[in-house]
Amino acid sequence: MKTILFATSNPHKVREGNKIAREFGIRFEQINVDYPEIRDENIRKIAAEGVKFVFERIKKPVIVEDTGLFIDALNGFPGPYSAYVYKKIGCEGILKLLQDSDNRDAEFITAIGFKDSSTLRIFEGRISGTISKEKRGTAGFGYDPIFIPKSLDKTFAEDPEMKDRISHRRNAFYKFCQWFSNHLR
Amino acid sequence: MKTILFATSNPHKVREGNKIAREFGIRFEQINVDYPEIRDENIRKIAAEGVKFVFERIKKPVIVEDTGLFIDALNGFPGPYSAYVYKKIGCEGILKLLQDSDNRDAEFITAIGFKDSSTLRIFEGRISGTISKEKRGTAGFGYDPIFIPKSLDKTFAEDPEMKDRISHRRNAFYKFCQWFSNHLR
Repeated sequence: MKTILFATSNPHKVREGNKIAREFGIRFEQINVDYPEIRDENIRKIAAEGVKFVFERIKKPVIVEDTGLFIDALNGFPGPYSAYVYKKIGCEGILKLLQDSDNRDAEFITAIGFKDSSTLRIFEGRISGTISKEKRGTAGFGYDPIFIPKSLDKTFAEDPEMKDRISHRRNAFYKFCQWFSNHLR
Repeated sequence: MKTILFATSNPHKVREGNKIAREFGIRFEQINVDYPEIRDENIRKIAAEGVKFVFERIKKPVIVEDTGLFIDALNGFPGPYSAYVYKKIGCEGILKLLQDSDNRDAEFITAIGFKDSSTLRIFEGRISGTISKEKRGTAGFGYDPIFIPKSLDKTFAEDPEMKDRISHRRNAFYKFCQWFSNHLR
């Protein structure tokens, strides 16, 4: 089992990462290294700048993860500021903003940044879906109760096993673990 | 007349600054130097980091300005992300979020960061008020059509002369100009 540091304050993300990492013989270990997140609409760039900052501090191989929910009818809001917006106005705020909107299309995007002494790599996962009319389900965290993946009828919070199989974060972690298990050889 | 550089992409802010600066014999000159804004809820810190970054790039005395609208019932949202949030959901989005709210208290805060080879200084201006029930007025920019200063009954966008006399930005620029005209001696 190979351990790699994961700089985040959110234990949910570490738990989701470890579910995928296990089959690759990888384990993420949470460290709370605060890094200044830049304001940018490109979450790949945010992850890249974040992981460079953390690596400079700790000088050990490390990942960071940044996720955004991009809602069509809101011009991509809350996007890279999803965590901040969630803390301030929650799912209820998003539902209010969309109350008159027929277009409820949205996309979750995760970018994982990896950095060691020689390499900087970014891994991305995406999933398309729609914003539900009301909160449904209690599993997961963040916007999970209002996000319904395309062609399905349950929110991430109603069906956490479905989320584990298909989510944006799952896809990004899968790509990272595939690459990292080869990178180690 | 002493010219000082003002790193911003927003000409409205330069115009508002110059109205105040004139009586101090100071003139702001806009430069478009992009700086990575950190994600932080403290706009003084954002202005400080921003102006340090710009000064390192241009090596000339320079100011940056950061303004946030902090709405009580939304836990301080949109705060330091006011410009991003405005671009995405506008005044209409804020009005939707507050539609069921009796508490409409809000505060505008501006922080101006100044940096030259020897000095880093932050100047702050604030104004309390309320968020109107609907957009009113066409002057100004940003959230001006929905912000009513305390004890008054017009929005900033309905009475731009009133805004010029009492606004958060006016107060911050006034403090800066007072200090800077002495600093020059």
